Amino acid sequence: MNKILSKKEVEILLNKERELYNNFKSSSLKLDMSRGKPCPAQLDLSQGLFDVLTSSASVKGVQDYRNYGLIDGIPELKVVISELIEVEQGELIIAGNSSLNLMYDSLQRAMQFGIFGEQPFNKQNKLKWLAPVPGYDRHFAITEAFGIEMINIKMNSDGPDMDAIEEAVLDPAVKGIWCVPKYSNPQGIIYSDAVVERFAKLKPAAKDFRIYWDNAYMIHTLEKTDAEMMNILLAAKKYDNEDIVYMFGSTSKISFAGGGIAFVASSPKNIAEIKKHMSVQTIGHDKINQYAHYLYFKNANNVKKHMLKHSKIIAPKFEAVLKVLDSELKPLNIAAWSKPRGGYFISCDLPKNTARRTVQLAREAGVIFTPAGSTFPYGRDSDDSNVRIAPTLPDIEDLTTAMRVFCCAAKIAYYEGLLN
Amino acid sequence: MNKILSKKEVEILLNKERELYNNFKSSSLKLDMSRGKPCPAQLDLSQGLFDVLTSSASVKGVQDYRNYGLIDGIPELKVVISELIEVEQGELIIAGNSSLNLMYDSLQRAMQFGIFGEQPFNKQNKLKWLAPVPGYDRHFAITEAFGIEMINIKMNSDGPDMDAIEEAVLDPAVKGIWCVPKYSNPQGIIYSDAVVERFAKLKPAAKDFRIYWDNAYMIHTLEKTDAEMMNILLAAKKYDNEDIVYMFGSTSKISFAGGGIAFVASSPKNIAEIKKHMSVQTIGHDKINQYAHYLYFKNANNVKKHMLKHSKIIAPKFEAVLKVLDSELKPLNIAAWSKPRGGYFISCDLPKNTARRTVQLAREAGVIFTPAGSTFPYGRDSDDSNVRIAPTLPDIEDLTTAMRVFCCAAKIAYYEGLLN
Repeated sequence: MNKILSKKEVEILLNKERELYNNFKSSSLKLDMSRGKPCPAQLDLSQGLFDVLTSSASVKGVQDYRNYGLIDGIPELKVVISELIEVEQGELIIAGNSSLNLMYDSLQRAMQFGIFGEQPFNKQNKLKWLAPVPGYDRHFAITEAFGIEMINIKMNSDGPDMDAIEEAVLDPAVKGIWCVPKYSNPQGIIYSDAVVERFAKLKPAAKDFRIYWDNAYMIHTLEKTDAEMMNILLAAKKYDNEDIVYMFGSTSKISFAGGGIAFVASSPKNIAEIKKHMSVQTIGHDKINQYAHYLYFKNANNVKKHMLKHSKIIAPKFEAVLKVLDSELKPLNIAAWSKPRGGYFISCDLPKNTARRTVQLAREAGVIFTPAGSTFPYGRDSDDSNVRIAPTLPDIEDLTTAMRVFCCAAKIAYYEGLLN
Repeated sequence: MNKILSKKEVEILLNKERELYNNFKSSSLKLDMSRGKPCPAQLDLSQGLFDVLTSSASVKGVQDYRNYGLIDGIPELKVVISELIEVEQGELIIAGNSSLNLMYDSLQRAMQFGIFGEQPFNKQNKLKWLAPVPGYDRHFAITEAFGIEMINIKMNSDGPDMDAIEEAVLDPAVKGIWCVPKYSNPQGIIYSDAVVERFAKLKPAAKDFRIYWDNAYMIHTLEKTDAEMMNILLAAKKYDNEDIVYMFGSTSKISFAGGGIAFVASSPKNIAEIKKHMSVQTIGHDKINQYAHYLYFKNANNVKKHMLKHSKIIAPKFEAVLKVLDSELKPLNIAAWSKPRGGYFISCDLPKNTARRTVQLAREAGVIFTPAGSTFPYGRDSDDSNVRIAPTLPDIEDLTTAMRVFCCAAKIAYYEGLLN
């Protein structure tokens, strides 16, 4: 389109958008689209969790869960989660409420103590990590905090570029990779079976390399049925390679983001190593919340059914976002965005060098998006193009307004670019 | 006594105890006195926590606590805890359920990142730590895991030997000290104001030295009123020295050991540093449990009143233990034990070189005590004398039996020693 527009024509279009933008600005908006937060109606779905325990309830299973003990979680909930994520109970630790905390601690343990008798990462010379991009800013913040150099890996429509990964892991300094394998953050990509299988048989030069498989959206469909995906731990076993992966997950977006249950699954050998350190680190996790989650959900099938209720609430929000993008940006043919089947985000690629300006303009009009660049390690999107859109929290009216502001801001940034 | 007994007399006494011991052994006991666990009646005291939230309840204060946010805890509970431990709300982080986890993570952060811009402990040459003995085995396990050399500090009746501490901290390799300042584990010692004040104005050579002030039993009286104790953070402020202390605590033995609330309090500068790292480590702690604790306790005074109910339940258990010790061991004048005013333990000093044998004999008769030596760093009690007794969990009948076994075992070990 820009090829056939004269400078004058661009100026006219820009002025038109600026007029619209000023209207938005004068309406004192205050909308936050920056984080993938569940909305109140989603949180209401799990209010029943507050009824399963009462003062007359027994909180006893194999022991009194009100007391100390069972550092790896209560067996009742282990049955539910192990069925849900298709692992053995001995391959599972159920912990506190934050899977990010489990990931951070896993990496911190590798830094401090090393893995399977290898030198602690802290005592190794150079540390590198693979980061499929765009990805999750809080993953990148962890590896950055530990001073580990991140290497960008391109995302394809079926998962990260496995050729690049297989090449990169020949370097023994490469110690791990961040993956959100299903409904990825932010693009909503589902790793194909072929990709999962290549991960499962990956043979890195570093024996202490681990795949950080953050299955944050494992059953978080936006459709009527959840997409199938190959289980990496099962696949890895076929190749006698099950030590390569730590699987993480939580109920943060199933029950409560402010009080869910997090877990890590891996080979028995990895789990034993984690438990050894965990037994020094803590007296144990909150078993009462674990028991309440068990009593409320009872089995994996109920958890899956519960997710369809979430889907009904948030799918229309994703549609509303896509509708505005379709009507406002599609005609210009300058941007591309994901149409996810699940997860919490829509990833939007704007024209080069306009993402930062777009987010800035939106913010100045009272609409906050995730900072441009934050889907890349060190906040560096060399194209300055990607913006993560989080549709779940606002209601549809606010969402529509926010996206109109976003599209208006994107057009202004684009036209400004054409004139420079 | 041993001076005036002939070998023959000792043999007669030993045989008598062995006969008694064999009777115990044949009665198939199975009693566990090894850990400081609350008993079911104590846990029942907090069952009301399960009623404060229901499916029709709002879980909103300054925000919806079911959602992400507020990494340092909810303001309502901050009010309660800050009043309870006499700190400002800005000096407080309310976290998950385990204060041990907060201690471990604090030390791990110092290892990895350093404190206030000092070199990370991992990059410093030699690390030492002060361990008042006898003390808490899980403290010692943390410093041992990090490879920090522990230096024993003698406990006096009013707290640790401050002369030795003031001398030791002249060494810049000494980075911290474990303290259980009130109703100490295992002796039940209350640090005197003079001791607290000397801690408050301590000026170690290492700028990154911290006092790990584990106030685990801060209001855990066995009497009708809780003992008063000087507040170390307030005291340290008088000396412009408030960065020296991390105060830890939890409701593990107030509400539920398996689902309480833990917290750390310190100077705003320390708190800011902790929060900076914590914001990378986790998406936040369980705010729903925090809110439930707020709704249940409402204010600090109610928490204190609640502790008197605990006292009523467990004080008779301590008395039962002391009664057996008085009747069985006192006449021999060979052992000494604490008579605590609060906390969870009785510390018993047996004749030299008999603690291990005593605990072994008791275990073989079906009564498990904390392993001898575990109240010392590296499990090394050079006198092989100290045993920690945990009276809270068993009922009084079992407790009495267990203590009879203990005393019988102690006598056997003593007489065996006399004959060798």
